Amino acid sequence: MAGCCAVLAAFLFEYDTPRIVLIRSRKVGLMNRAVQLLILAYVIGWVFVWEKGYQEMDSVVSSVTAKAKGVTTTNTSKLGFRIWDVADYVIPAQEENSLFIMTNMIVTMNQTQGLCPEIPDETTVCESDANCTAGSASTHSNGVATGRCVPFNETVNTCEVAAWCPVEDNAQVPTPAFLKAAENFTLLIKNNIWYPKFNFSKRNILPNITTTYLKTCIYDAKTDPFCPIFRLGKIVENAGHNFQDMAVEGGIMGIQIKWDCNLDRAASLCLPRYSFRRLDTRDVDHNVSPGYNFRFAKYYNDLTGTERRTLIKAYGIRFDIIVFGKATVLCDVIVLYCMKKRYYYREKKYKYVEDYERGLGSETDQ
Amino acid sequence: MAGCCAVLAAFLFEYDTPRIVLIRSRKVGLMNRAVQLLILAYVIGWVFVWEKGYQEMDSVVSSVTAKAKGVTTTNTSKLGFRIWDVADYVIPAQEENSLFIMTNMIVTMNQTQGLCPEIPDETTVCESDANCTAGSASTHSNGVATGRCVPFNETVNTCEVAAWCPVEDNAQVPTPAFLKAAENFTLLIKNNIWYPKFNFSKRNILPNITTTYLKTCIYDAKTDPFCPIFRLGKIVENAGHNFQDMAVEGGIMGIQIKWDCNLDRAASLCLPRYSFRRLDTRDVDHNVSPGYNFRFAKYYNDLTGTERRTLIKAYGIRFDIIVFGKATVLCDVIVLYCMKKRYYYREKKYKYVEDYERGLGSETDQ
Amino acid sequence: MAGCCAVLAAFLFEYDTPRIVLIRSRKVGLMNRAVQLLILAYVIGWVFVWEKGYQEMDSVVSSVTAKAKGVTTTNTSKLGFRIWDVADYVIPAQEENSLFIMTNMIVTMNQTQGLCPEIPDETTVCESDANCTAGSASTHSNGVATGRCVPFNETVNTCEVAAWCPVEDNAQVPTPAFLKAAENFTLLIKNNIWYPKFNFSKRNILPNITTTYLKTCIYDAKTDPFCPIFRLGKIVENAGHNFQDMAVEGGIMGIQIKWDCNLDRAASLCLPRYSFRRLDTRDVDHNVSPGYNFRFAKYYNDLTGTERRTLIKAYGIRFDIIVFGKATVLCDVIVLYCMKKRYYYREKKYKYVEDYERGLGSETDQ
Repeated sequence: MAGCCAVLAAFLFEYDTPRIVLIRSRKVGLMNRAVQLLILAYVIGWVFVWEKGYQEMDSVVSSVTAKAKGVTTTNTSKLGFRIWDVADYVIPAQEENSLFIMTNMIVTMNQTQGLCPEIPDETTVCESDANCTAGSASTHSNGVATGRCVPFNETVNTCEVAAWCPVEDNAQVPTPAFLKAAENFTLLIKNNIWYPKFNFSKRNILPNITTTYLKTCIYDAKTDPFCPIFRLGKIVENAGHNFQDMAVEGGIMGIQIKWDCNLDRAASLCLPRYSFRRLDTRDVDHNVSPGYNFRFAKYYNDLTGTERRTLIKAYGIRFDIIVFGKATVLCDVIVLYCMKKRYYYREKKYKYVEDYERGLGSETDQ
Repeated sequence: MAGCCAVLAAFLFEYDTPRIVLIRSRKVGLMNRAVQLLILAYVIGWVFVWEKGYQEMDSVVSSVTAKAKGVTTTNTSKLGFRIWDVADYVIPAQEENSLFIMTNMIVTMNQTQGLCPEIPDETTVCESDANCTAGSASTHSNGVATGRCVPFNETVNTCEVAAWCPVEDNAQVPTPAFLKAAENFTLLIKNNIWYPKFNFSKRNILPNITTTYLKTCIYDAKTDPFCPIFRLGKIVENAGHNFQDMAVEGGIMGIQIKWDCNLDRAASLCLPRYSFRRLDTRDVDHNVSPGYNFRFAKYYNDLTGTERRTLIKAYGIRFDIIVFGKATVLCDVIVLYCMKKRYYYREKKYKYVEDYERGLGSETDQ
Repeated sequence: MAGCCAVLAAFLFEYDTPRIVLIRSRKVGLMNRAVQLLILAYVIGWVFVWEKGYQEMDSVVSSVTAKAKGVTTTNTSKLGFRIWDVADYVIPAQEENSLFIMTNMIVTMNQTQGLCPEIPDETTVCESDANCTAGSASTHSNGVATGRCVPFNETVNTCEVAAWCPVEDNAQVPTPAFLKAAENFTLLIKNNIWYPKFNFSKRNILPNITTTYLKTCIYDAKTDPFCPIFRLGKIVENAGHNFQDMAVEGGIMGIQIKWDCNLDRAASLCLPRYSFRRLDTRDVDHNVSPGYNFRFAKYYNDLTGTERRTLIKAYGIRFDIIVFGKATVLCDVIVLYCMKKRYYYREKKYKYVEDYERGLGSETDQ
């Protein structure tokens, strides 16, 4: 009991600290301070000035809408003279953060449900019914084989299929692209961002932009870096690709909008930066569905009431709009207590403090 | 060689530690312990109790489906009496994490490919053919100019264009909104979340919710905070906006579902929290395509077999459903070794330990 | 003034360091070194070898396209013999990172705007007009009540509604699924990834894959782990579910593509890993719109010019493609200065250094 008290007393009322040797040496003394100075410089220079580590961060919340404009005409033997506007070449009509513009197409008109010969290829060409297995449907066939071998044309016989007839012949893609004029179509991108932590929101149509300017401007990295209207051709070009090449088989373009804002400075300095990048990589070695395309159909009933459709294999460019960025705000308490990086500053500061304080011979708060 | 051994021996068999001064002073001793106590309190209080730093975190993986319900009628000279249901006003029929509901529209019926005068505006009005450049198509024109100047009506002449005729006249948006009744439509949101690390999954239709309740309930922050069925009008209202205003020119609403779960407690306490926010900002200064709208067309063939379409400029509200949240679980080993924050606790603990141990006069494990 | 100088001189030209006791004890000495050795081993072993903490990280940027293939036939009294191809069962035709495939449906043909009796249920069955409130439209009704009570069939009377007539009868879902053959349809997923920091990009169609292989292969975790073509049935099966069950009422499948790449090794070792998971949870207790379905309509005009539509309630599986992963690259400077984890290594190293250096009796750089 008494021993216990003694221990407790010792624990409470005693204090031990290393004995210090005081070396009176200019060389060592100066060297010591120099080292401390370096550390101090490092902390202030690197951590605070360079890494802006004293700021609180927040990531962006955003909403995007994209709207295409432009109209063009085509004149082909198959379709005759035809005009194309937004409702014709944007499919589907609306998407979130994304917009598809059809630049090329293979149209198969007036399809009806029925029986017709397949398009000739190594698997469909046949000598006799023996070559055609009834009910079979390979991944790439247009319909379900009936088991009969019928003439495709004077020279070739192919297996008959139950399908939407006539079946699509996508042997070759139209070159140049059917809607090559899409190069001059424009894209208006409206982007609203919001930094929840600081409840700071802004849009890419900047307040100082006039309506008249918006009516005429086209984005250009140099001359019009804040015009939210983009020429399709320019987008692809900025990404280092050729629109007409891309238009033939289609592809995917990324439009990146970067919002890095230091909210310590004026909000007017928080500006969007646009960059462009082709997201799909054309691989010349693999011609299995290169580029970007998909099929859709317009359905209607003819006079006899039978359902017909126009099948369209649409090639085109999908524009994915990707918004990212962060906002920073100075906040001192945060530096030491609330931030992810606090260990870093604490350690740094502490190291400096330690040396300094030891200079004064106390170590309690080490 | 011998010298080398000596050095090695010294390196191996010697141990140096600072000499300690033991100060028998109640004041200093107590102060010392007090400081240590504060640090200890800080570590336990702040890090563990306040920051819950001893828990492992995981972010949510989620899937969302949204389904609208509601039907309304309109009666206009142009369209006559007409009924509108889901298949009419949800475009496209399905999207990922998003749903668009048409609230207003400009319909241009029975368009065919042909030649017709442009809608009069500063650029299209003309005195003579000289004013119209053949083949020109500005960003905002509805077609490609033929170069002729033709009467638009008794008083005005405009340039003729090859276009879908008659061209759309979107001079003014119908006010009030055409489908203003959409305010009473409902949205059923089904959201499944999954925390991969803990393989914990849950849905926003809570187990204690009965089918009968689901058939009748409408979300209300106070009375029905867990009903997954939302009245469109209420969503907009909760975001501090007016549905009828928003319905005219359209907009984008964010429906945020927050899942912050402390899995140390009962799973039944892991609940979704809904919040609403308008993601697009109406800017009165800029009337270049305010709100949210897009164009789409319904195509059909008339008796003569010529293709016709009904062009619809659809204004409406896009509901983007944003799911976020994190789950936490106690895990002790993790605290010291596996966690992002380990440095913090180690440093803290260590600082305490150091002082304590030095009290016992050993520094080896510093 | 003089005193000030003295203080300054003392501050600059003096240096104090703890006095050291040198203990010549094999036991203590060895123990000391052993402890240091352990720490060193820990640092190297755990931090560097195990946690790969010396590497810089980057997250993936990706683009995804999905394309379905497959054709099937159905033969029902209602629709007769019918063939279904991609344009029929993929709705909408294109989406970002997602693809919906219709597996089941309730078709209501030849709907026109008009008046007709509701489908009988507890709310719509009526004795007299008194039971039907004119103008009322509940959430689940197909139209707006006219207030009349009319015969639905010989036995039952229901309230008349202004609606697209005849109204849809979705009493029961076809079982087995209408397009059960969808189990054998295939999905070609093209995924391009990009690690901005290292400007490293790759696609899931690996360079060593030949076109002929792509034409025939089907993904299999064991035999063909890198074939980007998936059989729908297999996807669902791999997620531990039954396709035919899922096809009836629909659902949501997640296809996860993981790209974890250590770019210190050959780029050819940076490979995609596929995993599958059902994202929606079927909850037997709640039959309020289970699974996944939506409604859409095909519009057309009949001979008399009146607008008609075929309403389709589409049940099906939505495939959400989720890409994630990170790349790491060795970088030494980064280890100590630029990395998130720097505190960790600094602390560790420093602890070792400290002990070592103290062995040399200097503490200046502590």
